[in-house]
Amino acid sequence: MTSIIPKIEAIVGREHVTTAAEDLLCYAYDATNRHCRPDAVAFPANTDEVSYILKLANEYRFFVVPRGAGTGMTGGALAVQGGLVLVMTRFSRILAIDTDNLVAEVEPGVVTGHFQEVVEEKGLFYPPDPSSAPYSTLGGNVAECAGGPRAVKYGVTRDYVLGLEVVLPTGEIIRTGVRTAKGVVGYDLTRLMVGSEGTLGVITKIVLRLFPLPEVVRTLSVVFSRIHDAARTISEVMRSGILPRTVEYMDQAAIRCVEDYLTRLPPACQRHADRATAMPAHMAMAGRSPDTTGRSNASTPGNGVQDIGLPVDAGAMLLMDIDGSPSAVEATLQHLVAICDKGGANQIKVAGSEQEAKDLWRARQAISPALFRLGPDKINEDIVVPRNRIPDMVEWIDELRSRTGLTIVTFGHAGDGNIHFNIMLDRRDKETLEKAESAVEELFGKTIALGGTISGEHGIGITKAPYIGMEIGSEELALMKRIKAVFDPNGILNPGKIFYASPPTADD
Amino acid sequence: MTSIIPKIEAIVGREHVTTAAEDLLCYAYDATNRHCRPDAVAFPANTDEVSYILKLANEYRFFVVPRGAGTGMTGGALAVQGGLVLVMTRFSRILAIDTDNLVAEVEPGVVTGHFQEVVEEKGLFYPPDPSSAPYSTLGGNVAECAGGPRAVKYGVTRDYVLGLEVVLPTGEIIRTGVRTAKGVVGYDLTRLMVGSEGTLGVITKIVLRLFPLPEVVRTLSVVFSRIHDAARTISEVMRSGILPRTVEYMDQAAIRCVEDYLTRLPPACQRHADRATAMPAHMAMAGRSPDTTGRSNASTPGNGVQDIGLPVDAGAMLLMDIDGSPSAVEATLQHLVAICDKGGANQIKVAGSEQEAKDLWRARQAISPALFRLGPDKINEDIVVPRNRIPDMVEWIDELRSRTGLTIVTFGHAGDGNIHFNIMLDRRDKETLEKAESAVEELFGKTIALGGTISGEHGIGITKAPYIGMEIGSEELALMKRIKAVFDPNGILNPGKIFYASPPTADD
Repeated sequence: MTSIIPKIEAIVGREHVTTAAEDLLCYAYDATNRHCRPDAVAFPANTDEVSYILKLANEYRFFVVPRGAGTGMTGGALAVQGGLVLVMTRFSRILAIDTDNLVAEVEPGVVTGHFQEVVEEKGLFYPPDPSSAPYSTLGGNVAECAGGPRAVKYGVTRDYVLGLEVVLPTGEIIRTGVRTAKGVVGYDLTRLMVGSEGTLGVITKIVLRLFPLPEVVRTLSVVFSRIHDAARTISEVMRSGILPRTVEYMDQAAIRCVEDYLTRLPPACQRHADRATAMPAHMAMAGRSPDTTGRSNASTPGNGVQDIGLPVDAGAMLLMDIDGSPSAVEATLQHLVAICDKGGANQIKVAGSEQEAKDLWRARQAISPALFRLGPDKINEDIVVPRNRIPDMVEWIDELRSRTGLTIVTFGHAGDGNIHFNIMLDRRDKETLEKAESAVEELFGKTIALGGTISGEHGIGITKAPYIGMEIGSEELALMKRIKAVFDPNGILNPGKIFYASPPTADD
Repeated sequence: MTSIIPKIEAIVGREHVTTAAEDLLCYAYDATNRHCRPDAVAFPANTDEVSYILKLANEYRFFVVPRGAGTGMTGGALAVQGGLVLVMTRFSRILAIDTDNLVAEVEPGVVTGHFQEVVEEKGLFYPPDPSSAPYSTLGGNVAECAGGPRAVKYGVTRDYVLGLEVVLPTGEIIRTGVRTAKGVVGYDLTRLMVGSEGTLGVITKIVLRLFPLPEVVRTLSVVFSRIHDAARTISEVMRSGILPRTVEYMDQAAIRCVEDYLTRLPPACQRHADRATAMPAHMAMAGRSPDTTGRSNASTPGNGVQDIGLPVDAGAMLLMDIDGSPSAVEATLQHLVAICDKGGANQIKVAGSEQEAKDLWRARQAISPALFRLGPDKINEDIVVPRNRIPDMVEWIDELRSRTGLTIVTFGHAGDGNIHFNIMLDRRDKETLEKAESAVEELFGKTIALGGTISGEHGIGITKAPYIGMEIGSEELALMKRIKAVFDPNGILNPGKIFYASPPTADD
């Protein structure tokens, strides 16, 4: 690699390449918390530079790993076989927002949350909302086909990508798709790129579809004693014709963990926790509770100690947002409350203001930091089952928890059956780690048996690569590998991902 | 081929293969009205039979052309190089409708309109609605990525396909995608198949996403003197946050043609015309007209003579459906009427009943039969421009019409910029035909210059293959051809489509 660095410097400029140990370390990690040190890191600024680098990579046969903000959950941005990490964050321009045609054109390094704010100022709406939206880039979202809570109504990133500019692994620059609402001209290279996890090309421009910003959003949290009642209520809601824009759920373990986390922290940590969830330090819980039972929701803002005000016997909590025009939302809200009430909810809180809505979301957003009270390391899986199989899955997870003694917490996007399954552990404890890994394999088996999929929105990357064969047949895998070879005959782009449980060999 | 027929008979049964001249003629046509006689026609009944036939085709190197109902507009189902037509209409079962998870599994030969009726009886909704829905099959819709009027709100077929079972051109059976709302495991073979026009595999099962059936649909027709006012009003509607489920438009030529057609036909032909548009013979026009000017909308059901009641100076007509909950629809309707009024509409009719809504749709649905009053043959193109460029396109078409003297009529899905451009002519008139062909090429050039695409929902097939290079670059085309070769190394499946302006040669 050392001999190639000057050539890369000649392309992107000397100040935009680094091999310093401290820099390599920064680009060795992603959200999987695994560590793969690249040989070098480059920060190209335009499509031509990316193209030149990829041509060089084919000439000198070094690996290239495209990277956004490194928020991926399956290792897609890790240089598992070394090589050059191509950091795309200098591609940070929003090139156009077309308010007439509800279309935007962006560079891949634009941060998702920033883009959302900018379009919302213009009365427009970009629905995909992965939890990492404040940090993740749109390019990374496209590469992994990111989802998020709003997917139940609005779909995932795939549904918003109209067209792309892509540099192929061999350096050619292609344009895919259209800038219009419809288009069927040739094969759908756009959607083939979406979710291909940086293995088929480097995205350099993205054309996105937008919606008008919904006029009103209302939030309600609903607590059930039994997860089965919650699941049945979700089915009832969807069958009724109501399409909430989010239907999030937390299981009992998640509720207790968050409750404990938010209640017991001293005021200083409270403030830290609040920052972590992007919430102001002092807040009162939502006011209007048409059907509140159980513990009171009093908060004591004076000393910063507060709880999420859940009944002690809470078995599951749902958090729902509905959006639309004011009259429609009002009517839907009443209908929704009636369904939840009839479904056996023992607490329903409807936020009366934007602040109250944020407060209700606080418990959901505190899960990630709260989980680390249960163990220093997290194994985080992202499975999907048909919505009406959630109770079966939860029951099975309960059984798994008691059988293995593992610390398992689940939450997720119940509206589309997408469950985030977390095992909290200390990776240095080899016995527990082995038990956890075998639990994950069991989980995937159960998921597939229930008609589900082993990855809803995180992709496969390296963490799920050993399991892909459980879901995808050998003919299909062979076909995908042949497609990969068409795009990347020399195998230089993001090697070791998706198909490879171990580093690929010559005949892979 | 003669020596192979017995082998095909052995696979599907003797009664399900034919080489009779009268049968070959039936499967030589599609909606392009072109004629390509196949060598044989087979009617397989299950996936294994399709697989055996494709293996045979690779062994003996004969062409196989999959076919649904033959309603395609670009020749996708035509055996342009002969071979075996594989008619998929025996795959006619709806395998499952899962009302809990809003998912259906169907065979490809299910007729779209039938499927819609069946799911609607269960309170569910399959939005894609190509005009051919009463006859077209879901398999054909997936192969061409069919659209329709409702796409402006609900998207196209692509947005409803969760997974597929496909027989690859080499005979392997693969399963793609998921049965859940989300899923990102490996490359998106599902969307690669959607819109690939029967060139990458034969679809044998389809998993479709459904929506709850909207409670209420309301229809309004709005007439403007000038197309520019109509176009500006559409932009205003979309910007306001209203998302109608259809925004159809007809230009002045279309309005006059339909008016003439519906008014002048004798009663017997009236009845025929009504059948053609699936409408009862005697109908009155919509009642409530908050802002009606111009000619009265009286109808005389006694003698069957009726008109569509448009002002004589009508320059463009919009037909909009809005759907949702009753309160939301009512509020939206008032908002919509106000926007149209402010936008300079000189007639607004709001349907007060389902029957009145059907009456308003009658003019739109009568276009296709009415057009043939203007000439025995139709050249039908399906372009899309960014929504706010519709006025530019219409102005340019006006100029083209006066410059060439061609009989040009446009209508289409204005909500997503999708214009159906029709030249009515007699193909035997060589001079006019040449002029028309050159006008089409000009049209495509203008479309691309305006940021549009040459095919919104009809695909490329054979009719647009000569023009694909105007939109898709050579690198992209080369990549698509390499993908085709991965799927179909011997080039046996649906040859001569998409990429080939003339029959392919060895190095294509």
